[in-house]
Amino acid sequence: MSEITVAQALKGLKAGIAKANEIKSPASIAVVDSGRNLLAFARMDGALLASIEISQGKAYTARSLNMKTGDVTEFVQPGAPLYGMETSHRLPLVVFGGGRPISKGGQIVGAVGVAGGMVPDDESVADAVASAIEGG
Amino acid sequence: MSEITVAQALKGLKAGIAKANEIKSPASIAVVDSGRNLLAFARMDGALLASIEISQGKAYTARSLNMKTGDVTEFVQPGAPLYGMETSHRLPLVVFGGGRPISKGGQIVGAVGVAGGMVPDDESVADAVASAIEGG
Amino acid sequence: MSEITVAQALKGLKAGIAKANEIKSPASIAVVDSGRNLLAFARMDGALLASIEISQGKAYTARSLNMKTGDVTEFVQPGAPLYGMETSHRLPLVVFGGGRPISKGGQIVGAVGVAGGMVPDDESVADAVASAIEGG
Amino acid sequence: MSEITVAQALKGLKAGIAKANEIKSPASIAVVDSGRNLLAFARMDGALLASIEISQGKAYTARSLNMKTGDVTEFVQPGAPLYGMETSHRLPLVVFGGGRPISKGGQIVGAVGVAGGMVPDDESVADAVASAIEGG
Repeated sequence: MSEITVAQALKGLKAGIAKANEIKSPASIAVVDSGRNLLAFARMDGALLASIEISQGKAYTARSLNMKTGDVTEFVQPGAPLYGMETSHRLPLVVFGGGRPISKGGQIVGAVGVAGGMVPDDESVADAVASAIEGG
Repeated sequence: MSEITVAQALKGLKAGIAKANEIKSPASIAVVDSGRNLLAFARMDGALLASIEISQGKAYTARSLNMKTGDVTEFVQPGAPLYGMETSHRLPLVVFGGGRPISKGGQIVGAVGVAGGMVPDDESVADAVASAIEGG
Repeated sequence: MSEITVAQALKGLKAGIAKANEIKSPASIAVVDSGRNLLAFARMDGALLASIEISQGKAYTARSLNMKTGDVTEFVQPGAPLYGMETSHRLPLVVFGGGRPISKGGQIVGAVGVAGGMVPDDESVADAVASAIEGG
Repeated sequence: MSEITVAQALKGLKAGIAKANEIKSPASIAVVDSGRNLLAFARMDGALLASIEISQGKAYTARSLNMKTGDVTEFVQPGAPLYGMETSHRLPLVVFGGGRPISKGGQIVGAVGVAGGMVPDDESVADAVASAIEGG
């Protein structure tokens, strides 16, 4: 399996920070590898402290489920098939947008999670991180 | 960044205890600093044991999100944008009223959490604590 | 209180990675702020997975105690005054070398933790990170 | 990176169960992948309930450190360089024998942990599991 190098992960952080600055949405950004283990992290100046845990939770969740975290939301609502899943792990799953898998050569090699802003802003930063890593 | 001194925090506890006695709502009161670390705490006679954890969770949450905890409630309801967020931290977030940030000179320097009574009572005690510290 | 910016923290990671490459000791590097909250992190290619948790634990411990983690070791031995302290936190303390506080203007503003190599190597990388941040 | 398939992991379990029956040491056997995530697990009839957690902890530890868990023991003794390390992870490290990495093509691809018997018995079962997977 191809893997994300630390150089690629740091390049991803840099791209994410640039995007977050551009849209004025200070964020925490977390990149995990294919095994859900933390590879790189940065909390931007002014980002909420809660973004530390939530960004890592989003990356962990995206790779755990191989889905964007925003796509999980509907399945965990009351009455939906996976209601309550977010508390089923020793590490918490985060079930709203801002996390997404990272692929190389058609294979998922890790994930990124971003928190600190509105969900669409976090998703935009996550896309920038993933693109930088997938292209690198 | 200006910080809450222990003298100010204890003054806050004293104000909170006075308020809680006045409204007959025995409470636990927790004050955290800007890093979400506990600064001062008191559990009043007759307060529920659960108030120990919940008051600290409220203070932790209020500083993590820089919001009143009661303002978080609507966002974590089923179908709302941050549904499930309360389980995203290693320390639990508390998503009902009784926690609020504490500011000095226009900057958030910590938070207070109060638990033990009805939510409006806890909020009233928390306001007394915050006012005493912000004014001190 | 002066604080570590994310730019300084990333500069610290870069200096640490350079040092670790120089001494051929691939490591995980974690920088926390004055409130013990994670600011930046990188796991180098080839670093042990255990270094993820241990580096963060060292940074958390160094700022919790305002000491180098290697200086804690003797106090937690059987019969020593703080025996067992490492299990007294919800987050584990790490009681061997590789973590140290970071100061600016004579005041502790955070900490760094490094893991992945022999203790002296980790300490050497941690010194490089701290110097880059303290100088920046 | 080559990976352990589930067929190989189950073949490993089968070999381990045969060995454990032969030496009359009922055990739990856990196989993790290169990311420390559980791949296959079996608790034999009569194995202690504690073996569930300990076998998984041994596999987690062996891959975290890329070492046999029995080789970690001496380093975490009082006065030894890594004293206290076993409490440094969110998931506990197990620092006595019964866990070992699994390699394919000269590269570590996962680990196995066995618990339930005396340490040498557990190690013997773990060796049987690893051999079956490494040869498969």
